[in-house]
Amino acid sequence: MTDVNFNTALIVGAGAGLSASLARVLAKDGIKVALAARTIGDLDALAKQTGARAFACDATERPQVEKLFAEVDASLGAPDIVIYNASFRTRGPFVELDPLDVEKALAVTAYGAFLVAQQAARRMLPKKHGAILLTGASAGVKGYPQSAPFAMGKFALRGLAQSMARELSPQGIHVAHVVVDGGIRSARRPDSAESPDSTLDPDAIADTYIHLIHQPRSAWAWEIELRPWVEKF
Amino acid sequence: MTDVNFNTALIVGAGAGLSASLARVLAKDGIKVALAARTIGDLDALAKQTGARAFACDATERPQVEKLFAEVDASLGAPDIVIYNASFRTRGPFVELDPLDVEKALAVTAYGAFLVAQQAARRMLPKKHGAILLTGASAGVKGYPQSAPFAMGKFALRGLAQSMARELSPQGIHVAHVVVDGGIRSARRPDSAESPDSTLDPDAIADTYIHLIHQPRSAWAWEIELRPWVEKF
Amino acid sequence: MTDVNFNTALIVGAGAGLSASLARVLAKDGIKVALAARTIGDLDALAKQTGARAFACDATERPQVEKLFAEVDASLGAPDIVIYNASFRTRGPFVELDPLDVEKALAVTAYGAFLVAQQAARRMLPKKHGAILLTGASAGVKGYPQSAPFAMGKFALRGLAQSMARELSPQGIHVAHVVVDGGIRSARRPDSAESPDSTLDPDAIADTYIHLIHQPRSAWAWEIELRPWVEKF
Amino acid sequence: MTDVNFNTALIVGAGAGLSASLARVLAKDGIKVALAARTIGDLDALAKQTGARAFACDATERPQVEKLFAEVDASLGAPDIVIYNASFRTRGPFVELDPLDVEKALAVTAYGAFLVAQQAARRMLPKKHGAILLTGASAGVKGYPQSAPFAMGKFALRGLAQSMARELSPQGIHVAHVVVDGGIRSARRPDSAESPDSTLDPDAIADTYIHLIHQPRSAWAWEIELRPWVEKF
Repeated sequence: MTDVNFNTALIVGAGAGLSASLARVLAKDGIKVALAARTIGDLDALAKQTGARAFACDATERPQVEKLFAEVDASLGAPDIVIYNASFRTRGPFVELDPLDVEKALAVTAYGAFLVAQQAARRMLPKKHGAILLTGASAGVKGYPQSAPFAMGKFALRGLAQSMARELSPQGIHVAHVVVDGGIRSARRPDSAESPDSTLDPDAIADTYIHLIHQPRSAWAWEIELRPWVEKF
Repeated sequence: MTDVNFNTALIVGAGAGLSASLARVLAKDGIKVALAARTIGDLDALAKQTGARAFACDATERPQVEKLFAEVDASLGAPDIVIYNASFRTRGPFVELDPLDVEKALAVTAYGAFLVAQQAARRMLPKKHGAILLTGASAGVKGYPQSAPFAMGKFALRGLAQSMARELSPQGIHVAHVVVDGGIRSARRPDSAESPDSTLDPDAIADTYIHLIHQPRSAWAWEIELRPWVEKF
Repeated sequence: MTDVNFNTALIVGAGAGLSASLARVLAKDGIKVALAARTIGDLDALAKQTGARAFACDATERPQVEKLFAEVDASLGAPDIVIYNASFRTRGPFVELDPLDVEKALAVTAYGAFLVAQQAARRMLPKKHGAILLTGASAGVKGYPQSAPFAMGKFALRGLAQSMARELSPQGIHVAHVVVDGGIRSARRPDSAESPDSTLDPDAIADTYIHLIHQPRSAWAWEIELRPWVEKF
Repeated sequence: MTDVNFNTALIVGAGAGLSASLARVLAKDGIKVALAARTIGDLDALAKQTGARAFACDATERPQVEKLFAEVDASLGAPDIVIYNASFRTRGPFVELDPLDVEKALAVTAYGAFLVAQQAARRMLPKKHGAILLTGASAGVKGYPQSAPFAMGKFALRGLAQSMARELSPQGIHVAHVVVDGGIRSARRPDSAESPDSTLDPDAIADTYIHLIHQPRSAWAWEIELRPWVEKF
């Protein structure tokens, strides 16, 4: 079994919730953490709590993504863990959807993931080492009614992840797609007293990300679905 | 079993090959055919042969798609069969891909399909009648290495198709996604003498499209995969 | 495109419903039809109506399956269309299921299909010609709660179909798995007046079987899902 | 996040390899371990090394499975972790397969899993606590040519797992299906010097089983695929 150390993690699409849980547990493991989001005012508390550095970046803009990676390289070292959490969704009857929302769903959910993953892979390939994790949703494996834009974005993300996994795994880069099926617990979406653990605890999701990151290369998973015990599927 | 008649078909992304086969067989069944492509000079012969009308349209541009449907409405009547064949692919090592090609793959393969399907559905919903067929590829169910852009586009298309099928089928619109797995026979890609029928005959693919269009609503398929008998899968 | 003629069809697990529709449409196409069921008293009317011959056979018993094929060979000629419709299901809380019912579900739904398909393939291989169709269910792609035995049987059937398709297609035998998702209309289960076509018309299902049988080998489908327009999936 | 303790693990189909790795890591965590196999002579060394108890049991025989659980109950306490590893495979051209091997593949790979899982669930349900892990293979998601029996057995196992997960998860029992895609490293199948980690290290697989067992119920996975970094898929 290989024993691989990781140095620097970059979490894109960072906010409260899953990204915060990831930042905390990665920082506790001694990994330097970079957080990127379109607006970083909200990240101050988390950055202070975890010693992470926050970077402003619109992940759908190629120059901004390149600048983000250059800054992380310079300040924390090239990231060997890169996690993409950003997505955009909208709902409504198919005939009433605004095409601009479809464009945005594709851009934020899938194209931004491509831009980030490509920069990540360029840094990882020469060392044949690194982990790229993409946060999916059940919408990426099942297209729900009244939700075409999100289905398009998350399906595209899954196609990206699968193509990358087939190409990059044999070059030493672990690519994994985590299908989060259910609502993530948060201040705005507290867990239910009548149905405990019916929302996903972000710390519990983060546990599985950390497990994936540390999987020895002889037994890698490219995908895992996580859902609350009571979630219908 | 319902016996439904169709009047007008619109084929977007028309060229030689599958679209020509579809145009011929639909025209033979007495259905008026509209062909749309970015450049229509190549469609002259086919239009003449089938009595179809050709329309110039960049399917990734919303105003052009709206204009296309308005023109078809006016000249042939609102289409009750709409087929989307356009796609863009490029290949290469993941780290060397041009992000512009990813944008184009998503736009032509998936976003254009959305624009066209939405216009189609708006015309079909009031009559609770119509068929929308989206031409997929094996890349839409399996992400191949060195092919992330096409995987992203075709996965997104499949997500669109599945979301539409779940929403629109109960409203009388038959949505189907045809996974074409293999090379389509053409002048540039003739069939092999040593391995006959190792390329898909476009007339054979068209047969299945016609079958899907005429399926009674009590037994609709939302997806079918077609491949040559000798194709590995 | 190949133009292939078929001579003799064998339908195993025949009864009212889908098998009767298949027998009628095959007979109308001039194909000799053999019907096999555990008890054949019920097949008299159908046999008379279609000119089919009925054979008693427990498909889970190897000697009986061998005898069935020998008799069909002798009386109608070796079948080049073989359809397997038999299945057994039972439901209930997982901890209360009778293991005997699991054995029976596996035997009738999957093992019998193997016995029949193997006899069929032995006759088709030398001629590199034939079609084997296996009737699946949504339970074969999705394991439902309180339905482990049926899930086990229908999943196993799908695995059989996929393995056969990969092996036998390049040898000229078309193997197809038809996922029937919903209730098939019958005297006992009439269609609903409030929700017309919410049950699958067996004639509509049969249409798709016939389409599959006649698909040219350059564009074969190994699987198709059929469901009523209003069925949730 | 729930913090759940486990007391007793039962591993069925135990031998060298994965089962030995599981026994070692579970024992190290303070969990009492029972090993079951058709013949237990081979388990002596492992039992001694881990303090596990070995039980002889043919998992395809209902009375033997009931006796196994009764003995484990009495000696180690009702198991709250149950792992099913047994399977039988054979290969060959479809038309030459021995039907007895198909029966055996279904019995050992799927029916035995049902018998064991049912006994397990009966013990876990009253406490709304427990984990049942079923060891799958890539053959359970993809039916390979010349391998119909194994495909049938492993597909059936996956159907069982999915049906159980949907039914039992909301009752507090974590059911997981682990798809092992590749060869497991062993004395007979050593890792390759030219292509290191091209076989699955059983300790690496065991790591993921342990991770699954300890997943909090708000974020359970019902399935995960594991393969070596260089394995084609």
